[in-house]
Amino acid sequence: MSKKKQNTRQKLYDIIFLADTPAGKAFDIALLIAIVISVIAVILDSVASIREKIGHFLFILEWVVTILFSLEYILRIYVSRKPYKYIFSFYGIIDLLAILPTYLSLVLVGSHYLVVIRILRILRVFRVLKLGRFLKASDVLMVSLKESRHKIIIFVEVVFIIVVIMGSLMYLIEGPRHGFTSIPRGIYWAIVTLTTVGYGDIAPSTPLGQALSSIIMIMGYAIIAVPTGIFTVEMSRASHKKITDKGFVHCNSCGKFPHEVDAEYCKYCGARI
Amino acid sequence: MSKKKQNTRQKLYDIIFLADTPAGKAFDIALLIAIVISVIAVILDSVASIREKIGHFLFILEWVVTILFSLEYILRIYVSRKPYKYIFSFYGIIDLLAILPTYLSLVLVGSHYLVVIRILRILRVFRVLKLGRFLKASDVLMVSLKESRHKIIIFVEVVFIIVVIMGSLMYLIEGPRHGFTSIPRGIYWAIVTLTTVGYGDIAPSTPLGQALSSIIMIMGYAIIAVPTGIFTVEMSRASHKKITDKGFVHCNSCGKFPHEVDAEYCKYCGARI
Amino acid sequence: MSKKKQNTRQKLYDIIFLADTPAGKAFDIALLIAIVISVIAVILDSVASIREKIGHFLFILEWVVTILFSLEYILRIYVSRKPYKYIFSFYGIIDLLAILPTYLSLVLVGSHYLVVIRILRILRVFRVLKLGRFLKASDVLMVSLKESRHKIIIFVEVVFIIVVIMGSLMYLIEGPRHGFTSIPRGIYWAIVTLTTVGYGDIAPSTPLGQALSSIIMIMGYAIIAVPTGIFTVEMSRASHKKITDKGFVHCNSCGKFPHEVDAEYCKYCGARI
Amino acid sequence: MSKKKQNTRQKLYDIIFLADTPAGKAFDIALLIAIVISVIAVILDSVASIREKIGHFLFILEWVVTILFSLEYILRIYVSRKPYKYIFSFYGIIDLLAILPTYLSLVLVGSHYLVVIRILRILRVFRVLKLGRFLKASDVLMVSLKESRHKIIIFVEVVFIIVVIMGSLMYLIEGPRHGFTSIPRGIYWAIVTLTTVGYGDIAPSTPLGQALSSIIMIMGYAIIAVPTGIFTVEMSRASHKKITDKGFVHCNSCGKFPHEVDAEYCKYCGARI
Repeated sequence: MSKKKQNTRQKLYDIIFLADTPAGKAFDIALLIAIVISVIAVILDSVASIREKIGHFLFILEWVVTILFSLEYILRIYVSRKPYKYIFSFYGIIDLLAILPTYLSLVLVGSHYLVVIRILRILRVFRVLKLGRFLKASDVLMVSLKESRHKIIIFVEVVFIIVVIMGSLMYLIEGPRHGFTSIPRGIYWAIVTLTTVGYGDIAPSTPLGQALSSIIMIMGYAIIAVPTGIFTVEMSRASHKKITDKGFVHCNSCGKFPHEVDAEYCKYCGARI
Repeated sequence: MSKKKQNTRQKLYDIIFLADTPAGKAFDIALLIAIVISVIAVILDSVASIREKIGHFLFILEWVVTILFSLEYILRIYVSRKPYKYIFSFYGIIDLLAILPTYLSLVLVGSHYLVVIRILRILRVFRVLKLGRFLKASDVLMVSLKESRHKIIIFVEVVFIIVVIMGSLMYLIEGPRHGFTSIPRGIYWAIVTLTTVGYGDIAPSTPLGQALSSIIMIMGYAIIAVPTGIFTVEMSRASHKKITDKGFVHCNSCGKFPHEVDAEYCKYCGARI
Repeated sequence: MSKKKQNTRQKLYDIIFLADTPAGKAFDIALLIAIVISVIAVILDSVASIREKIGHFLFILEWVVTILFSLEYILRIYVSRKPYKYIFSFYGIIDLLAILPTYLSLVLVGSHYLVVIRILRILRVFRVLKLGRFLKASDVLMVSLKESRHKIIIFVEVVFIIVVIMGSLMYLIEGPRHGFTSIPRGIYWAIVTLTTVGYGDIAPSTPLGQALSSIIMIMGYAIIAVPTGIFTVEMSRASHKKITDKGFVHCNSCGKFPHEVDAEYCKYCGARI
Repeated sequence: MSKKKQNTRQKLYDIIFLADTPAGKAFDIALLIAIVISVIAVILDSVASIREKIGHFLFILEWVVTILFSLEYILRIYVSRKPYKYIFSFYGIIDLLAILPTYLSLVLVGSHYLVVIRILRILRVFRVLKLGRFLKASDVLMVSLKESRHKIIIFVEVVFIIVVIMGSLMYLIEGPRHGFTSIPRGIYWAIVTLTTVGYGDIAPSTPLGQALSSIIMIMGYAIIAVPTGIFTVEMSRASHKKITDKGFVHCNSCGKFPHEVDAEYCKYCGARI
């Protein structure tokens, strides 16, 4: 490859993948607008009365955006130094999923509505535009979620066990006559109740069923404290660590952490951090 | 302007805008009563059976209060040293919005119900009456909300992305036959479900739809932990800072903050706070 | 009054008002059982099929308990050194309210169901029996609630302002045709929605109404963080202070507080606590 | 008993009760798979359309698993040194309950659906497989729940008192004409409302009833803060204690606890921890 060509590729890479140059920033903002417009277009297209009036226009708009996104996708592969790494990365897969549904709609009618998945591309643009404080805030959130994942999984498991047992009991107590036609439907009802959503499409009508569902409701009302408690504690910890903008400070000398927000020296060994 | 006139204006200003003098306090309390009465009047007026009986009386009451509020609004402009600053301030706009609907009702029938916005004027009265401990408490709340705004915005964005994708999926899975007539309606359903409101006006009826909505419910049940965690942590921080009644202490010497509740000396530079 | 009579009164006082002696404890446990039985009796009496069968028995049971409670009430007044203080105390009023409905039912049919208020007497029994750890736990809860009352009141006020404005807007947007027959009904709907209860008896049906209610739902979903944050912070503070069983320790020497859970010496002046 | 026989029993014990040896681990994983398959089989069996097709196969599957579980149960009793202790232990009872429903179904049609209780056996497998980090995380959760039990019980009691009084009031206000046919039904409605589930199968229709239920809703919305606050504070404390992986450190010298996360010496007596 000639040096000139390589330079062009590097320049294109900077424009497409980064947002440090004015051109790169302009590219990302244009992308942001295209994403938002195309998602709104698909949403509007699903409304019968709007589709009748401007459906043709929305159809063309969708294809224009899809072709532009396809070109962008090809360009991204071309300018990447390690194309495979990009293709199989999180954002690479989203970029592909954002264009596939339109092509798929040539074969499968209605599938083009799946292009709303395009909205996930907004995450990339945010990340690229490096919206300073937001990025930091989202880091704190991500770290908190990551740290609390074991406890959250246990919580979800317990919730799962509760709804399976409760759903089965309600199937036996209420039976098909009152809308509990099968255990899966009973489990669906138990989830609707425990999460305090309460559609009311299936509701207990026998006294025993109502007594049991009262227990589920109070359980659901009380155990919401559990994920909240878990996350709040991790959030509090992550937040304390992050406030100095130093991230999760490990001492360079003894490797221990965490250190207080305003620590200048390691409190374990006295070395300067 | 003669000095006497200026004195009168200053006196009026103290009465209308402040609550330090007995006259000023009386004015604010009268205002508070007028606001509450007129809001209750409008609410009662919307009940058909009550309107039939005392509708005429409520109509007169509304006009009397509106004219009084109009005079007050003109007075406020008159006594302000910088009228434009007042007119375009938060409370200036509310003061205007509190009288407009009644005049508008001469042209647009029914619009007079909008005068309930008058209830926002209560905020001003509270602030003016300087309800000591409440003001401090509301300060802590405001600071906590302000500090957590970046994280809350990210949270709302993620919620937004989830409901758009889930609403579209449900539109594809359930379809118009089961009440999901368009993607906006699917998104509305997803919001109703994720926030655990669960009206039940639209509810999934296919097994696949119920499985997907179970996932949304458990997500909604678990991620409510996120805003709670964010706000609790900020609240805890703001609360710790406030406990000494020193407010957000900045060091006079090095300008750094925050300082601990019981700090006598700046922990960053050693100067007395 | 003879000394013997006074002694009898003092003994009765110990039995009725305290639970330190075996007789006093026995009295309180008997009271507890009587309360629970009579409340269950009233609840069962309201079920038509049960009333048909054992209604007569329940009727007699209610009168027996009521007469016993009446005698107890008179005794309490008799043995109190300051009868008026007892009569107008919180528990004195509850004791009276616990017997009134039965007598009232002679005049007003159905009012005897109000005797369920008797269940509040359980609070007194708990307090008298001094259920050690529970009393301490309830103290922590009460202190937390008391400390957070200013912030909770502000929160409820803001919620109130939101539901009034939103309820009125929905009345204008949806109108009587869609179930929003008046502003009070709109406010009721707004409360149902903001608190994420979501009965579905009134639900928005116009696109604009659904958009507005989506906003209310997300607000309701997010601002539940506020009371939780407020209470958690106060709880955390009260809990830290209480753990040593010393209550809210003030230093005897310099008067400052709070002190750490395991503090032996005042951290402000060094005096022994 | 010969020594050889005893050795065999010990070996069997290690395989069945522990997961330290490869054989023991294999046994537990096989158990896990059998549990999951049999629970799914029962759930599927309750769906009419599936039962018609493969009901016979599911019937055989259930009996095969039940007989295997029965053999395992007998083996567990045989290899235990103290069989009675095992039989009456928490897991011993679950092991029995996991096989009973199938035998019961010979007498009582439909009771075999109760075998979903088998899902609780998953808890044992998790514990035996010692899923490291999960076990620690679940320990923190259990300790937090245990520590907050007194406060949670008081909270549930207060909720109970509220729903009894409110349910009775609504029975009097709304009456049987609007669906409140008895006080138990009123209490059921109050629980549905206070926990913000809100099915809508029973909803107030009189203005007074709607006003009262608005109060219950706002109470339910606000007091959810209480269990959350309680649990968060305990969680925070338990979590702080666990962070060093030392568990709940008791001082070897004076026996006091807890100690700070980074404590090297006992802060009560100065002995090295």
